[in-house]
Amino acid sequence: MGIRLDSNAYGKNAIRLSKVIRHPDRHDIRQISVDVSLQGDFDAVHLAGDNSKVLPTDTMKNTVYALAKDRFTDSIEEFGLALADHFLVHNPQVSAVTIDLAEECWARMHFDGAAHPHAFVNGGSEKHLAGVYQDRQGLALSAGIGDLLILKTTDSGFEGYIRDPYTTLKETADRILATSCDVRWTYVGVPEAPQELYTGIRELLLRSFAGHKSLSVQHTLYTMGEAVLEGYPLVKEITLKMPNKHHILFNFQPFGLENNNEIFIATEEPYGYITGTVVRDR
Amino acid sequence: MGIRLDSNAYGKNAIRLSKVIRHPDRHDIRQISVDVSLQGDFDAVHLAGDNSKVLPTDTMKNTVYALAKDRFTDSIEEFGLALADHFLVHNPQVSAVTIDLAEECWARMHFDGAAHPHAFVNGGSEKHLAGVYQDRQGLALSAGIGDLLILKTTDSGFEGYIRDPYTTLKETADRILATSCDVRWTYVGVPEAPQELYTGIRELLLRSFAGHKSLSVQHTLYTMGEAVLEGYPLVKEITLKMPNKHHILFNFQPFGLENNNEIFIATEEPYGYITGTVVRDR
Amino acid sequence: MGIRLDSNAYGKNAIRLSKVIRHPDRHDIRQISVDVSLQGDFDAVHLAGDNSKVLPTDTMKNTVYALAKDRFTDSIEEFGLALADHFLVHNPQVSAVTIDLAEECWARMHFDGAAHPHAFVNGGSEKHLAGVYQDRQGLALSAGIGDLLILKTTDSGFEGYIRDPYTTLKETADRILATSCDVRWTYVGVPEAPQELYTGIRELLLRSFAGHKSLSVQHTLYTMGEAVLEGYPLVKEITLKMPNKHHILFNFQPFGLENNNEIFIATEEPYGYITGTVVRDR
Amino acid sequence: MGIRLDSNAYGKNAIRLSKVIRHPDRHDIRQISVDVSLQGDFDAVHLAGDNSKVLPTDTMKNTVYALAKDRFTDSIEEFGLALADHFLVHNPQVSAVTIDLAEECWARMHFDGAAHPHAFVNGGSEKHLAGVYQDRQGLALSAGIGDLLILKTTDSGFEGYIRDPYTTLKETADRILATSCDVRWTYVGVPEAPQELYTGIRELLLRSFAGHKSLSVQHTLYTMGEAVLEGYPLVKEITLKMPNKHHILFNFQPFGLENNNEIFIATEEPYGYITGTVVRDR
Repeated sequence: MGIRLDSNAYGKNAIRLSKVIRHPDRHDIRQISVDVSLQGDFDAVHLAGDNSKVLPTDTMKNTVYALAKDRFTDSIEEFGLALADHFLVHNPQVSAVTIDLAEECWARMHFDGAAHPHAFVNGGSEKHLAGVYQDRQGLALSAGIGDLLILKTTDSGFEGYIRDPYTTLKETADRILATSCDVRWTYVGVPEAPQELYTGIRELLLRSFAGHKSLSVQHTLYTMGEAVLEGYPLVKEITLKMPNKHHILFNFQPFGLENNNEIFIATEEPYGYITGTVVRDR
Repeated sequence: MGIRLDSNAYGKNAIRLSKVIRHPDRHDIRQISVDVSLQGDFDAVHLAGDNSKVLPTDTMKNTVYALAKDRFTDSIEEFGLALADHFLVHNPQVSAVTIDLAEECWARMHFDGAAHPHAFVNGGSEKHLAGVYQDRQGLALSAGIGDLLILKTTDSGFEGYIRDPYTTLKETADRILATSCDVRWTYVGVPEAPQELYTGIRELLLRSFAGHKSLSVQHTLYTMGEAVLEGYPLVKEITLKMPNKHHILFNFQPFGLENNNEIFIATEEPYGYITGTVVRDR
Repeated sequence: MGIRLDSNAYGKNAIRLSKVIRHPDRHDIRQISVDVSLQGDFDAVHLAGDNSKVLPTDTMKNTVYALAKDRFTDSIEEFGLALADHFLVHNPQVSAVTIDLAEECWARMHFDGAAHPHAFVNGGSEKHLAGVYQDRQGLALSAGIGDLLILKTTDSGFEGYIRDPYTTLKETADRILATSCDVRWTYVGVPEAPQELYTGIRELLLRSFAGHKSLSVQHTLYTMGEAVLEGYPLVKEITLKMPNKHHILFNFQPFGLENNNEIFIATEEPYGYITGTVVRDR
Repeated sequence: MGIRLDSNAYGKNAIRLSKVIRHPDRHDIRQISVDVSLQGDFDAVHLAGDNSKVLPTDTMKNTVYALAKDRFTDSIEEFGLALADHFLVHNPQVSAVTIDLAEECWARMHFDGAAHPHAFVNGGSEKHLAGVYQDRQGLALSAGIGDLLILKTTDSGFEGYIRDPYTTLKETADRILATSCDVRWTYVGVPEAPQELYTGIRELLLRSFAGHKSLSVQHTLYTMGEAVLEGYPLVKEITLKMPNKHHILFNFQPFGLENNNEIFIATEEPYGYITGTVVRDR
């Protein structure tokens, strides 16, 4: 019985690139991080140290910066498609390319109701994500939102669950629901205006989170996923990862006070972790 | 020659507290982290392990949660003052109390132009800071902004500096200026409406950063500090810490391309670190 | 065409537990973080908010602490097996349980050549990992090492790779190789002494990294994986993730100095990322 | 009443440098992070954007790498002294230089009892720190340990403290004491063999932590500081920062079990934070 190399990939991660787009009346700032990963005919690299088919990860990095000049002009989805295509076309030894992109949110500063032409404030942890997987047979495009930290102060409860000898949690009809969402959806084919789609889907996710009466994180997860599939026929499937950012009611009993659902301990660890994929029935 | 205890302090850090304030038509969410630190007559604790004058840090934590019920109703500055006063009044062995507070920014969600009553999205890394130092002689109140990540795509240069045998940096009349600012200012006495002051000072800091033609980070730092002292007589002094979030022009020469000040590498390390305090002349 | 829930799971992450094991002559300290994840018949939770089949994640946490008393007495692999079994046996609605465990390394302090009975210093970022996946058909046990930061100052080169218009990297026959390895292997069945196996496999990984003449990270990855499969028949397959912690030769040319392969810039981003799985041929 | 610049400084932080020292029979790897900070006649930079006295932080970085070739051959303390001296001698506009250095711990790999000549495993979060402050009047040298994570499973209690209406903490005669220590001491003048001193002081700190019967974190802090001042006449003063890494006894009562001081929840936040400086009486 021999030993052999099975699935493998290599590439460059965290290629951080900023682009200033100079319009006549204003500048745009785009700040992204790109991961490139290649799969292909790399057995000899691993087994014999033969690098003749290796495109160095340093070259991948240079390529991302160089192509950004002409090809990163609109959405990160389109830039990702250009990158995947470039690496596949120029590297016959490569069977599949994966490009993952994350864009920081910079908000233009406003003063006295007017947009400033070139000053920005960072919009926080939330990121616009995009992913391209392209092989010799075709391609798949996905988009998403990373670290979307959302919270509602009511319309959320958790009751009627299993009780066993290790249960100490109290049921509640009214709690804080907070999560640092990671959402990722896949498109049917390559849609025309991915930036507008992203904006619309993000708004719909927030709207369904806010408007929904949550009976559990799972219940909210499905509701958000279902809303996107219903609202956007171009979305094939959607996966949500929803860590529960617990807000625990502080126990005022020892001090003779009442906590009318107002003072909470925000904890980081441990945390509930709920994931699910919502798809279309075929 | 003997050995003795010199300056010392102890307390509880990172007391993370959320409060839901229930108005008839909407909820507010407040999320803060509080640090409590005490100084005083604690020689016997250190030298003899005599805990009779030690208020446990666990009790400090409980106190912060308990007092939040009635005293955390408006600005974090006012809650900090209430906390400092409580610990000083109830602990004769304590000579000075320091309370540091940091508030997360939660932005209310809006749909179709209307504010949602109870759903929020996190506003990112930026934090509203406040600090109270109170001893038996009096108190000092400070406020500030933590992790304020701001960027301008032009109106920033860096030229005319010293050249020595180790110089390789190229002068530039037009660069990206980005910094993750930490700003802290001290008030003359205790102002009446610290939340409004904070909002005004934050806006003025952004405005002077955006409107200023920067010749160096130091130049911008002073300009921002001076603007606050000029605009707000209640501010006694202001300290800015401005790490330079470098954006390095990517070198396109090896590829026969021109980089017309558009494609940059965003680096984290190493980073320039500029600090300064601007005060009033007496 | 309808919409439906596809794959989904939920559980509790980052359950941080310490256990003191009191031997007559010494104490042991064990510090672990446990993730519990369940799959099963949870459609009604998502679609209808019906929690009657939900074991709360808070109860999972309590269960981990409670079972640690009697069942966490030896390896984390064995504790993981006990936990998976417990959740599967007591929850008929559950089809599969995943338990992931990570153990911190605490090193006993030594003075004058003698082991101290109860004082420890933390061994750093490196973690002993274990994973159990158990469903109604059977179980799979894996182990691994997380954040194993290793470096060699020579016996590593990178030459003979593809050159294209975006190549600027220089070939080198002698460089620093450093990586923060994440290694995970799967056992055939459940081995008898997982802790000893872990220790042996870890030593073998280090030995093959140190003794090997590396022609690329891929070459080293395969060598390490192959060594484990050759040395341990109980290991079915092994996956290594090897981010390249680049050490870039500092350019001394502008200063008229020579850098004889001695002064390097250690960079964090961007980084090469190499992954591969080594398996047995059937 | 005018406005003026008060205290200010600027420099480069996080200059990450690795050096391979090639001995005939083995290599050493040294990995450090250096911060450089200058104070001096910089009013015109801030007020007028006049950079004629500014040594760019990029040049500081180059200087650190260039000087490392000949001057970083032994302890980081000695390298720090060389750097401070260089910047002060070559920059008449500078009144004071601060150099802060932190060295990673790399442990040489051993196989079959023999040291490997060029393979290393990282020793974790703990860092050897050094600091030089030099002005036109003289200099001060300090050393220290960062992120020293130590734990003892017994010989630690916390009893006899103040009880007030907000007390819920239970007294204990036997608990886990764990802390991620930051220790910094200042030398009288410049000692001859700072690396050996460091090693000796580190060992003494561990020894006093381990051997001491702790009645509080403060009690342990003073004991450790006192031991160093007693053992090392060259140490002028020592400051310890000791965040309490709480290990909370898990409550087994709801499950009808007994927790005989064996199962603990390790928490990160909130945390007790104890600081103190121990000095010599004059």
